[in-house]
Amino acid sequence: MENIDQKAIKDQQSQKFITKRVISPALEEVLYEPFCVLDHGFLRVIDYMGDDASVVQAARVSYGKGTKKISEDKGLINYLMRHRHSTPFEMCEIKIHVKLPIFVARQWIRHRTANVNEYSARYSILDKEFYIPTKDHLSAQASNNRQGRGELVPDTQAKEVMELLRADSERTYAHYREMLNAEEDGTILDQNKKCVARELARMNLTLNYYTQWYWKIDLHNFMHFISLRADPHAQYEIRVYADVMIDLLKRWCPAVYEAFIKYRLNGTFLSQGGKDILKDMLKGAENINPAEYNMSQREWRELKKQFSL
Amino acid sequence: MENIDQKAIKDQQSQKFITKRVISPALEEVLYEPFCVLDHGFLRVIDYMGDDASVVQAARVSYGKGTKKISEDKGLINYLMRHRHSTPFEMCEIKIHVKLPIFVARQWIRHRTANVNEYSARYSILDKEFYIPTKDHLSAQASNNRQGRGELVPDTQAKEVMELLRADSERTYAHYREMLNAEEDGTILDQNKKCVARELARMNLTLNYYTQWYWKIDLHNFMHFISLRADPHAQYEIRVYADVMIDLLKRWCPAVYEAFIKYRLNGTFLSQGGKDILKDMLKGAENINPAEYNMSQREWRELKKQFSL
Amino acid sequence: MENIDQKAIKDQQSQKFITKRVISPALEEVLYEPFCVLDHGFLRVIDYMGDDASVVQAARVSYGKGTKKISEDKGLINYLMRHRHSTPFEMCEIKIHVKLPIFVARQWIRHRTANVNEYSARYSILDKEFYIPTKDHLSAQASNNRQGRGELVPDTQAKEVMELLRADSERTYAHYREMLNAEEDGTILDQNKKCVARELARMNLTLNYYTQWYWKIDLHNFMHFISLRADPHAQYEIRVYADVMIDLLKRWCPAVYEAFIKYRLNGTFLSQGGKDILKDMLKGAENINPAEYNMSQREWRELKKQFSL
Amino acid sequence: MENIDQKAIKDQQSQKFITKRVISPALEEVLYEPFCVLDHGFLRVIDYMGDDASVVQAARVSYGKGTKKISEDKGLINYLMRHRHSTPFEMCEIKIHVKLPIFVARQWIRHRTANVNEYSARYSILDKEFYIPTKDHLSAQASNNRQGRGELVPDTQAKEVMELLRADSERTYAHYREMLNAEEDGTILDQNKKCVARELARMNLTLNYYTQWYWKIDLHNFMHFISLRADPHAQYEIRVYADVMIDLLKRWCPAVYEAFIKYRLNGTFLSQGGKDILKDMLKGAENINPAEYNMSQREWRELKKQFSL
Repeated sequence: MENIDQKAIKDQQSQKFITKRVISPALEEVLYEPFCVLDHGFLRVIDYMGDDASVVQAARVSYGKGTKKISEDKGLINYLMRHRHSTPFEMCEIKIHVKLPIFVARQWIRHRTANVNEYSARYSILDKEFYIPTKDHLSAQASNNRQGRGELVPDTQAKEVMELLRADSERTYAHYREMLNAEEDGTILDQNKKCVARELARMNLTLNYYTQWYWKIDLHNFMHFISLRADPHAQYEIRVYADVMIDLLKRWCPAVYEAFIKYRLNGTFLSQGGKDILKDMLKGAENINPAEYNMSQREWRELKKQFSL
Repeated sequence: MENIDQKAIKDQQSQKFITKRVISPALEEVLYEPFCVLDHGFLRVIDYMGDDASVVQAARVSYGKGTKKISEDKGLINYLMRHRHSTPFEMCEIKIHVKLPIFVARQWIRHRTANVNEYSARYSILDKEFYIPTKDHLSAQASNNRQGRGELVPDTQAKEVMELLRADSERTYAHYREMLNAEEDGTILDQNKKCVARELARMNLTLNYYTQWYWKIDLHNFMHFISLRADPHAQYEIRVYADVMIDLLKRWCPAVYEAFIKYRLNGTFLSQGGKDILKDMLKGAENINPAEYNMSQREWRELKKQFSL
Repeated sequence: MENIDQKAIKDQQSQKFITKRVISPALEEVLYEPFCVLDHGFLRVIDYMGDDASVVQAARVSYGKGTKKISEDKGLINYLMRHRHSTPFEMCEIKIHVKLPIFVARQWIRHRTANVNEYSARYSILDKEFYIPTKDHLSAQASNNRQGRGELVPDTQAKEVMELLRADSERTYAHYREMLNAEEDGTILDQNKKCVARELARMNLTLNYYTQWYWKIDLHNFMHFISLRADPHAQYEIRVYADVMIDLLKRWCPAVYEAFIKYRLNGTFLSQGGKDILKDMLKGAENINPAEYNMSQREWRELKKQFSL
Repeated sequence: MENIDQKAIKDQQSQKFITKRVISPALEEVLYEPFCVLDHGFLRVIDYMGDDASVVQAARVSYGKGTKKISEDKGLINYLMRHRHSTPFEMCEIKIHVKLPIFVARQWIRHRTANVNEYSARYSILDKEFYIPTKDHLSAQASNNRQGRGELVPDTQAKEVMELLRADSERTYAHYREMLNAEEDGTILDQNKKCVARELARMNLTLNYYTQWYWKIDLHNFMHFISLRADPHAQYEIRVYADVMIDLLKRWCPAVYEAFIKYRLNGTFLSQGGKDILKDMLKGAENINPAEYNMSQREWRELKKQFSL
């Protein structure tokens, strides 16, 4: 993370204001602090609104804190999460600054319920920063699952792949700068040449180049993003960002975090067939034939795995 | 506003926390304070996120404040507003607590880009608070405009109307309570009777009864709401809420407020025909025939009025 | 449903056009046909886009039908539903015309992901049509559940309640018309009086008056609406509309319908604790103590009920 | 457009179904037909819902066509457009299949009010198709405008740039395939090597590679997209897609198209200052000093240009 403006961040972190708004003490501690992700990426909280009590207050539409006892508040938050009452969780908001590879950004942006301002390569010059996977994450295509990764690529081949990626990233960037005909600060390189429009030159960069954006989302959709992107089926390169978000959620709204883990992240959905099979097994049924429950072999395998049958 | 929990509000207003987040000093001053609207309604800010500088910071995707000089920031905000770059304005957020008549709530909720938690009449008992227009706002149906109001109803008739409204509001509420068979605190009135389900009994109330909700929206959509609802064509009973919002906007983000007034609220849209007519008139054309510009008589009248022709 | 324009509906139903678009034969059969709901309400399909194959086509981003065999298509639809891939289901759309009591409309509108055009009481006069529950649905407030209804109100009291509701509906409507000073066709009643603005007079109507709207939604959100509103915890008066939608879904996209029933409507979500308890019970554990699983007594009761333990 | 499945398209175009739904005859003519855009891109309509009359019907919440005379319908559509009543236009929907370079897709996806299914490079192999601008569109960076393009790059340099782009596209694709270690049909190239996961290998492609998606949007947001992306300030490579959409709109809903051109695309927004200046000039004022109207020199130049002053 060599290209970070540490001075600006220190300035922000030394800010001290008096407010009548509710605060989240543990989140204040890490405000503005960049959490490193991948080789050049980061994620840092810029601002937030609300805390655990704000969820309770909104659910009760109450004048004051909406709080009687902490235990009651926790009970209400659990109830809301369990019964999928999403609107009270929409009453909190978080804003983060993220640096991420473009191919990750393309997945991320599919969540439409957030606000985004991305660094524009139409009128700015992108830094020379690209993502190269380490060999610990350089996996082969999985054979049994269309999307995911399988076992690791052997060391020798991994080195070759990393070298291919690096060489192409270097070369396309060199040509990008050649087309721009300019230094990063705008100084023209060759006075006898035109500077190709930035909005055109950028098309020569590869998808592992880093971009950055401000991203703002409410607590409900923040948790939805996490539940999809911290999932083992999500691509590793986006999962690492979601993992940081889990830690941030724990700091921001500890009671919501607990409910989220219990009722969302570590919970599971059972289909009608799955439910019926478990019911029958609990009554003592043996030799389950999944077809009788209108269930495919694949689902049946998944169910057995989930319940250690 | 007799039914407000002044104690809870005072408690909130006496809160003092230290934060590293940016603050909006003028908005802090009125945080939690209910602004009276109509006879029993109010609007009070519960929380907010961001200020003028947050818009600039997001537009520049910058590490720190994104600010060089105040004049440059203002220039950028004007530029963004003028060219309808909406995303940087989405980076600020405000949360308000509103008490409003149900028929106003029905218009308000049509703005889908906000988060809402409404007081539930399914499991709570509504207060006996209903809206009666004063005679200064008791207007007759306009004859030339399908939607709006025309001149005031004469005093005698106004009194009759107010009396009709009041009597029906009182009576339907009395029957509501009779069906509920309960005091506000839940005490049963007649032990020999059932208490009709709250979700059913509420249907007997008239549309001028007050409800309340928490409402959260980003700055861009907040301004969109204002521009539609502070418009002279909006119904008076919602316009008065939008008017309070204008004052809040001025406190919250003064530079955005200025740009909003110049480029949105006091600006105007010209159709192709309107533009062509003005161009020709500026060149000295007289005796404009609107039909030649593919413009209806109605539009032509509106244009003449707008430009004092 | 006396106030329906049967002539206009018959005209629509007799339309026959040639199209290259995909069609849904079973939905075509009931196009424009009003399905009666409650005492004066209805729901009728006005238009739709796409069918089962459209979901498959979008998931595969294919040129043609995206279909090989029907069994493969069904398998893919089941897979998408099971793994909550929502975007392919967003590629179908339905538009319905609904007549419904205002208090139902207020719940319905909370689903923000639909398009709505409501009949405007600002410039039109509402019909004299209001909802009175039958005694089979006139329930008392449930004692153990804050929201729901409990047992039925006894006949005698039910009659009283129905009479109260009816009398207030009649009276408020009579006064509404008195204020409007006009027949439904606009004829002025008393030339010596002003006609109170429609946007004001409407506030005297009770929440059981019927309104109507056009409502358009994509297939994914249509199913989400159904799953929330066909739920036993939903208020009866909105559930009856959701029940009609289930039938429409079956006609429109039969394969999606089947997957929806299996993986959504008749499925269930297990929390971490619930999952752990079932796992232990399947291994033979007895005398489960829910507290050890971080589970409340209430959740434990619900789990036992769901799995007939 | 060599890679298009012409057979599948012909099959779709030869479909003939009977429907009771409204149709748009001129749009039916070009249904499924790919319109070529850029060197390998296209845009083709897959499905649609509604026509001009549907807008009118929704605005009136009417039982039948909602139509009396064509002239009245046109008048209502103009009125709705002029007064920015957006909801009736949301009642029509269109679905298109688009092939477009990734850097264009990244701009396009910022419109959040559409439904999207993109071809997945996580489990499919991308075709070798990339965009190279022709020399007629190979522009230099504009000096006076941060975003746009200036004059064309001279021929010799243009050739060099095109060659750089082509060589890098070719090379990164060759390495993409080398990493994948597979033919397009999945045949493994070198049995002694692993096939790198597709979700990883794709990161080596440049941003000018083509992707494709199904994109569905309502008529209101379709026009909003066009008004932003057919604007002269939009990047050429997305503008060409928006230009095709204008033609499609004309076919689909001709009356809406006319209103859109008059009241949106060819109209203009005046700020408070701009309005005041024009008013004064129409009264005969000369020697306007923009500062007196709180207007910057830049705005003043733009205003003079717009009104040929």
